[in-house]
Amino acid sequence: MLPTRIIPPAANAHQYPLLIKRLLLSGVRYEKTREIVYRDTLRYSYATFNERVARLANVLTAAGVKAGDTVAVMDWDSHRYLECMFAIPMLGAVLHTINIRLSPEQILYTMNHAEDKFVLVNSEFVPLYNGIAGQLTTVEKTLLLTDAEEKTAELPGLVGEYEQLLAAAGASYDFADFDENSVATTFYTTGTTGNPKGVYFTHRQLVLHTMAMASMMGSLDSVRLLGTNDVYMPITPMFHVHAWGVPYVATMLGIKQVYPGRYEPEMLCTLIKEEKVSFSHCVPTILQMMLNAPSAQGHDFGGLKMIIGGSALNRALYDTAKARGIQLTAAYGMSETCPLISCAHINDELLAGSEDEQITYRIKAGVPVPLVEAAIMSADGSMLPADGESQGELVLRSPWLTQGYFREPEKGQELWEHGWLHTGDVATIDDMGFIEIRDRIKDVIKTGGEWISSLELEDLISRHPAVREVAVVGVADPQWGERPFALLVLRDDQTLDAKGLKDHLKPYVEQGHINKWAIPTQIALVTEIPKTSVGKLDKKRIRLDIAQWQAAGCTFLSTL
Amino acid sequence: MLPTRIIPPAANAHQYPLLIKRLLLSGVRYEKTREIVYRDTLRYSYATFNERVARLANVLTAAGVKAGDTVAVMDWDSHRYLECMFAIPMLGAVLHTINIRLSPEQILYTMNHAEDKFVLVNSEFVPLYNGIAGQLTTVEKTLLLTDAEEKTAELPGLVGEYEQLLAAAGASYDFADFDENSVATTFYTTGTTGNPKGVYFTHRQLVLHTMAMASMMGSLDSVRLLGTNDVYMPITPMFHVHAWGVPYVATMLGIKQVYPGRYEPEMLCTLIKEEKVSFSHCVPTILQMMLNAPSAQGHDFGGLKMIIGGSALNRALYDTAKARGIQLTAAYGMSETCPLISCAHINDELLAGSEDEQITYRIKAGVPVPLVEAAIMSADGSMLPADGESQGELVLRSPWLTQGYFREPEKGQELWEHGWLHTGDVATIDDMGFIEIRDRIKDVIKTGGEWISSLELEDLISRHPAVREVAVVGVADPQWGERPFALLVLRDDQTLDAKGLKDHLKPYVEQGHINKWAIPTQIALVTEIPKTSVGKLDKKRIRLDIAQWQAAGCTFLSTL
Repeated sequence: MLPTRIIPPAANAHQYPLLIKRLLLSGVRYEKTREIVYRDTLRYSYATFNERVARLANVLTAAGVKAGDTVAVMDWDSHRYLECMFAIPMLGAVLHTINIRLSPEQILYTMNHAEDKFVLVNSEFVPLYNGIAGQLTTVEKTLLLTDAEEKTAELPGLVGEYEQLLAAAGASYDFADFDENSVATTFYTTGTTGNPKGVYFTHRQLVLHTMAMASMMGSLDSVRLLGTNDVYMPITPMFHVHAWGVPYVATMLGIKQVYPGRYEPEMLCTLIKEEKVSFSHCVPTILQMMLNAPSAQGHDFGGLKMIIGGSALNRALYDTAKARGIQLTAAYGMSETCPLISCAHINDELLAGSEDEQITYRIKAGVPVPLVEAAIMSADGSMLPADGESQGELVLRSPWLTQGYFREPEKGQELWEHGWLHTGDVATIDDMGFIEIRDRIKDVIKTGGEWISSLELEDLISRHPAVREVAVVGVADPQWGERPFALLVLRDDQTLDAKGLKDHLKPYVEQGHINKWAIPTQIALVTEIPKTSVGKLDKKRIRLDIAQWQAAGCTFLSTL
Repeated sequence: MLPTRIIPPAANAHQYPLLIKRLLLSGVRYEKTREIVYRDTLRYSYATFNERVARLANVLTAAGVKAGDTVAVMDWDSHRYLECMFAIPMLGAVLHTINIRLSPEQILYTMNHAEDKFVLVNSEFVPLYNGIAGQLTTVEKTLLLTDAEEKTAELPGLVGEYEQLLAAAGASYDFADFDENSVATTFYTTGTTGNPKGVYFTHRQLVLHTMAMASMMGSLDSVRLLGTNDVYMPITPMFHVHAWGVPYVATMLGIKQVYPGRYEPEMLCTLIKEEKVSFSHCVPTILQMMLNAPSAQGHDFGGLKMIIGGSALNRALYDTAKARGIQLTAAYGMSETCPLISCAHINDELLAGSEDEQITYRIKAGVPVPLVEAAIMSADGSMLPADGESQGELVLRSPWLTQGYFREPEKGQELWEHGWLHTGDVATIDDMGFIEIRDRIKDVIKTGGEWISSLELEDLISRHPAVREVAVVGVADPQWGERPFALLVLRDDQTLDAKGLKDHLKPYVEQGHINKWAIPTQIALVTEIPKTSVGKLDKKRIRLDIAQWQAAGCTFLSTL
């Protein structure tokens, strides 16, 4: 069982718990004719959406789902996933959003660890699921999700196919009230070492996160991200931190929602154009992929606003997107934080400055949103000043942070040392509240007694016109402790050698942006840089690759 | 003691209680140089605002204020009041906002009933305060608030003058965390009978109310009421339901705030112009007063957005305001509801219709905001359909409703009969979620077996060009049970007789808007209509006046 599922109701009889069902009620009240769209295959109104959530609840109840059970979903981004984000928690059950980019072994681990009892499986994942089914220890029943004409599959414990079951089910469901501290969702985050860790969020946390996100996105005029006239489509998987929580915001406000299935650039571009998508969000890698796709060339993105999170947004990508008609704004969060922590805001002080300077703030990690406290902590647990200079670990307090890792109390205690959630990010906070992420603690390069931010170095290197992608890690060096090693992917028909890179970085050394030890001593030109399942640079893998190359006696371009 | 001040902390150690201090933190982080303005006499930045709240906390602590104490304020709308809205609850104390429009006897009653221990008194109210001081049973100390040069006054238990004390106090204060269900504010609402009743709101309730209000006002594009670039000034007294809660929203978002002191039309117009006020709110009476004031003639209100609440917004006032450059939007709430319940929203269905039809929806009581449930209940406690036709009592559920009346458990149980808060308003809800208030239950006119809405009748009568103000009440009639009686204030140099009024209303009877029994049988032309302390038509008083006139043998204009 997940911890803290049910806490005795508060003393106050009329307190009205914060439950996810309230968000659903609000949206259909505002706009009952607005649409939910799935690819180019399905569209229906908010009124129907509400009915379908009730039908799904009836289907799950008939299949035996009870409050406290964990119900897992393996699907691409779809209307079905959206319905699960409501119906499952609204039953008092826990939605486990399975990261389908993990290896089968990791998926198996997370499903057994989360004690999944019911699983909804997209037909495309049936082979994967059947490959691990024999080792699943808690699953009792399965539901088939499919876009195919064939509405059945060989699945152990199969109850039936989603659309057929919904069509046969009752169109209303009387969802009970229960304690707002009941767990609503869980999913797994992959660290650099060990097994994936399960984070979990309660109804209260998701409702508060939704309210804060809506307040920030609707009210901050300097970046005005989302209003009720926008059309929303995620380009962040729904298994990844609730598609950053925006589906809950969009539903609460009755905003038109578009779900693209898999992230095929052509489908994304078509939906953006045909459905007039005006707001989305993703990690830098996915945006880069979309912009570079042959099918996206010549596509007019005019009017699209996007939040970029998950990894740092660099100026080159900002400018590229701008030239294509996309307005980017950076935000910061992580799996442990539900995730929204901060978002850019151009305050009065910045408005008095140049546009160029404003952009440098627009691509930082942003200012904490209402109800979030952020601070910089030194290794000994003391707080460092918010002076824009003092570097330390970014630590957080807020009502929507995971209260630990499921069934790993020691790791949870470590996460919450000194009463603050530890992000593992090295950051500064300036006197305007802006967080700037300098690096992951483990990705900082320690050389000659100095700390070099691999992120900053990647940003500077990415400004070279020949560079399409770059990753920098520290490699052991007998003299300096560590020295930076750069992996580069060059643009088509471009070249860059070690001297070229050194010449490109020299001015930054002279201007004091970096010290001279920051110039990478070894460089490898590669065709692809390893990424994690959510599209971030996979530095763990990169370090392993380099170690293997070194063991194999490879030589690299050298700036020495 | 107020009930439910402190509840044992939730089981979950890292839950981060919803406390008013979080709202203050957020605003200064967004905009530390933005201003708080008091009349034409004082302005300071959000950074200073934060410091002053800490100074005030130090002053109050030194004066002996402790968590659980009730601290009362008697002031006009000022920066001081805003500071009290934060500092007092942030100490764990309860802010009692005294309705200075009540009679001295009623003020005395509320102060003893609320068990006020400390009182902050504006120098203008010193005579009033000293008139009741001898009968105050719980007050220990007083603080003087003053704009005058003289910084002292004869006040029992006087600690000192606000600004002098603040100047001498420390500029930082370490506000403790405590349970979010601690009571933060209390104030008294005057009913038609009996003593004023005390409502009370917790930190949790005020934070949730603030988040919902910000989400709604910032995100609803169809009415877009408030964003961070707006300038806010209340024209609703701060003693009245937290100036409807907007000061908390404005502070959370770092919005420039302007406080006008007393509501003198000339000062209001000057501040709107000089400070570029773009958002305000008030009851219809006050807006009418402002628009009619000689000093407001020729004043350009262009760009001002206002929420109208407290009483129904009629079309005539909407049009008059529009012609003067003010965009009005109706909202609904009451003292018991913190207060925001609903606000107009022009959804896609309405957008397809005419502008004229859209306006009829813009002036209704609106659609419930997120986290509010509204329903229509019949006298027997059963729910009536939301079909726009079925009339019954409007009942509510939401996280921010008063949990009862302070020290009056029976009245609290009546308020919450069947688990819903009873508004005392007769209303319908249509299939788009719009609430339409038909009348106060006690103000409905029961004639010949039919119910006539006094509000609807007032709206129709107000459309006559000669009518400046109108109030309709039911008076006893031996044949029909009740018949409507109208009090009219005519515009300067205009006349209207009984036949004229009848001719004006006949088309509405013919079109089926009202039945023929709704035409008032008796009419009195008056120079002023009695209002309550918060500017609503005082129907209790009107009924008393009519009874006295009848007893005195007065005759009235008659449409019979």
